[in-house]
Amino acid sequence: MAEHLIIIGGVAAGAKAAARARRVNPKLRITLYQDETEVSYTACGQPYYLSGLINKRESLIIRRAEDFARDGIEIKNHHRVTALNVADRTMTVHDRIRNQKHVVNFDSLIIATGARSVIPETPGNNLEGVLTLRSMLELDKFHTFLIRQQPKTAVIVGSGYIGLEMAESLRELDIEVTLLSRNRQVFSRLDEEMSQPIHDYLIKKNVQVITGNGIAELCGYSERVNQVLTESGRRIPADLVVLAMGAKANVELAQQAGIMLGETGAIAVDERMQTNIEGIFAAGDCAESKHQLSGLPIWQPLGDTANLQGRVAGENAAGGDAKFPGVMGTAICKCFDMQIGLTGLTEKAARADGFDVISIIIDARDKARYYPDVRKLRLKLVAEKQNGRLLGAQAVGLGAVDKTIDIAATALLGNLHCRDLENADLAYAPPFSPVLSPIIIAAGALLKKVCHSDH
Amino acid sequence: MAEHLIIIGGVAAGAKAAARARRVNPKLRITLYQDETEVSYTACGQPYYLSGLINKRESLIIRRAEDFARDGIEIKNHHRVTALNVADRTMTVHDRIRNQKHVVNFDSLIIATGARSVIPETPGNNLEGVLTLRSMLELDKFHTFLIRQQPKTAVIVGSGYIGLEMAESLRELDIEVTLLSRNRQVFSRLDEEMSQPIHDYLIKKNVQVITGNGIAELCGYSERVNQVLTESGRRIPADLVVLAMGAKANVELAQQAGIMLGETGAIAVDERMQTNIEGIFAAGDCAESKHQLSGLPIWQPLGDTANLQGRVAGENAAGGDAKFPGVMGTAICKCFDMQIGLTGLTEKAARADGFDVISIIIDARDKARYYPDVRKLRLKLVAEKQNGRLLGAQAVGLGAVDKTIDIAATALLGNLHCRDLENADLAYAPPFSPVLSPIIIAAGALLKKVCHSDH
Repeated sequence: MAEHLIIIGGVAAGAKAAARARRVNPKLRITLYQDETEVSYTACGQPYYLSGLINKRESLIIRRAEDFARDGIEIKNHHRVTALNVADRTMTVHDRIRNQKHVVNFDSLIIATGARSVIPETPGNNLEGVLTLRSMLELDKFHTFLIRQQPKTAVIVGSGYIGLEMAESLRELDIEVTLLSRNRQVFSRLDEEMSQPIHDYLIKKNVQVITGNGIAELCGYSERVNQVLTESGRRIPADLVVLAMGAKANVELAQQAGIMLGETGAIAVDERMQTNIEGIFAAGDCAESKHQLSGLPIWQPLGDTANLQGRVAGENAAGGDAKFPGVMGTAICKCFDMQIGLTGLTEKAARADGFDVISIIIDARDKARYYPDVRKLRLKLVAEKQNGRLLGAQAVGLGAVDKTIDIAATALLGNLHCRDLENADLAYAPPFSPVLSPIIIAAGALLKKVCHSDH
Repeated sequence: MAEHLIIIGGVAAGAKAAARARRVNPKLRITLYQDETEVSYTACGQPYYLSGLINKRESLIIRRAEDFARDGIEIKNHHRVTALNVADRTMTVHDRIRNQKHVVNFDSLIIATGARSVIPETPGNNLEGVLTLRSMLELDKFHTFLIRQQPKTAVIVGSGYIGLEMAESLRELDIEVTLLSRNRQVFSRLDEEMSQPIHDYLIKKNVQVITGNGIAELCGYSERVNQVLTESGRRIPADLVVLAMGAKANVELAQQAGIMLGETGAIAVDERMQTNIEGIFAAGDCAESKHQLSGLPIWQPLGDTANLQGRVAGENAAGGDAKFPGVMGTAICKCFDMQIGLTGLTEKAARADGFDVISIIIDARDKARYYPDVRKLRLKLVAEKQNGRLLGAQAVGLGAVDKTIDIAATALLGNLHCRDLENADLAYAPPFSPVLSPIIIAAGALLKKVCHSDH
């Protein structure tokens, strides 16, 4: 009988792992259990479906069960894995369609149970119109609510990626939006001076921004939300409340089975994406990563990280030997026309990790200044004081943030110093870049601080 | 008396060198001699001025003589340096306005004499309507010709950057364009399969493309060009002929003074941009570079390279100690909406340099496939067969070529291998990238060829 690989969860990491495992080992029996209707969908595209920018719900589905079946991967939808016995290599699966329980055997296992939206304990959190985004179920509920209730006012709680993306999406639908951030700054992963332009921009786009204030209560009338009461006692009308307060790794199943969690609370894995149990792997939003700069564990629940981890877990579970080197903390999001990105360590994160740092902020353009549609961006570089080794980059602006961050992320991967970057041979022509790219200018300016600190 | 730095030539490298020298040494006397009316202009923007995309001629001027004067840098326009005596540290300068000759002393010198358009010996090369682009003088002549003569047909001789950019510009003016390439492929720096999409695209944009054919004669009537006779005997109507056959370094002055040229024919410099004569530097289109991958001399007459070299030369001529590490062969150009870029070594160049190589070509998208305005690109990666070290990248397509090339150029700088790149933590969100960036996909696929060659 063929060896049996079971994968639990099929959104990004699980789906990618299944495909990779099949390619590595054509004879493997592969079964993917998951609790939802659809497998292999993009959560990242959801805000654009809600705004109407993406018309078709099916655009968000990357591969269907039939597509996997063609590769000999069996997808078991609406199956919830309720218990895991790592000693016996068995699990209990609840078939929710037939309402039956089965015990199934596996030889190797990939846990890709993902994460779930954080729902605070706030009173009123279960009122109609209090919504989250992550699964297709949450998306459908959100979409239906928008169509049926035509909300006029919304409060978004949280100013991370989803909060900022939803601010755009809801404004596109002509909804009055208030963005509520418990932190003193929006998008608080960034250093404060880099999040200020986002704050200013949101206001320009007619988003009301309230920082340093959380929710105390969600108030409603006949089971439907109509107001948010903040911690400071402020009342904000809200036909709709979006809880964009982050996510929590789904680790309960693994934890109950005795699989070790890491210090971030997600499942601990080695560089082969294997848990503390031989032959049991974890990947995606339920798993931890190593930050390649600090060497410290980091939880980076992002779609691309999930795909990369899933690929490695799938390869290894199928008998291969791949390694996942870790992450750089790279992320990007768009809010209206503003692009917001970072990679590596921010100044505050680098200091918290014990680095002695120097930093620089420059305002630059994304093209030759005389070229039409030239756009501005602000770039901050952080480097080690002693030697100028790059530690991180943050960029916000209307142009080329993605390119700038990707150059920096690649520079981090290559362990580059400001001295290397200030003479980098990057691609210049007027439609694509100023004659010296923002990262070259910033690295050159930062280098001066290294030299001076030598004295 | 203050030390005197003289700079010959002030377009890109010379202007940058002057500015940097001033910053490094506020007391230095700095004089910049040049033969033209304007200093510090962009040649790269010229095609967009001719097409009308950039309206104002003055947009092409980066800094004026007055701007330099404010920094205590004296600009001597319309001054031609006719002889250089390196032993005496003197030069003869011809003031072309007053028609006077002077001998001036310098302590240090930067030669930034640039390059000139290649004009073939072809009969008819001096007919009216046979034009080139590089200096503001050439630009003005071109611009005046377009306005006064309203040409209906044009032949562009050469299919490098300027040839391709001018194809776009002239089509924008509704001129019938024939692009004539002596090579069998257009943009022959690329590997052939990467230039084919450009060829196809030009045809789609109603540019007639003739490859493997050069000019035999430029024919005219009453001193004005009206026809091109090709080497194969073909006759093409042409109210306008653009000679875009490359450039030639202006090295005669240096050569006559006994300054060494390199094997590329440009001025040889060390990593401080110093020539074989102590205190005499060269930078920009007249100077040679080292290719950081092959270690071989390369002549890379591009605006960004000139700026980087000028910065280093200026710093050193003013008493600093900067190094220019060399170039990666990075370049990019736009032709209509097609973006064409490369960095490092092409497959043919790598083989010629003695590398044992593997390569891969993939077709990819620049954004999530469901995101509006998603565009395609073709990417080729070249790596060392033994270990998968990246040697070069070429990209053509309608989107993200600049980003992809810059990631690759940075990867080359960091000496990265396919193994590093296949797990790179690049910035993903649907508006910016597919979940796995083209370079990740390509590196992963190329890595398989490395592994296989291990067996």
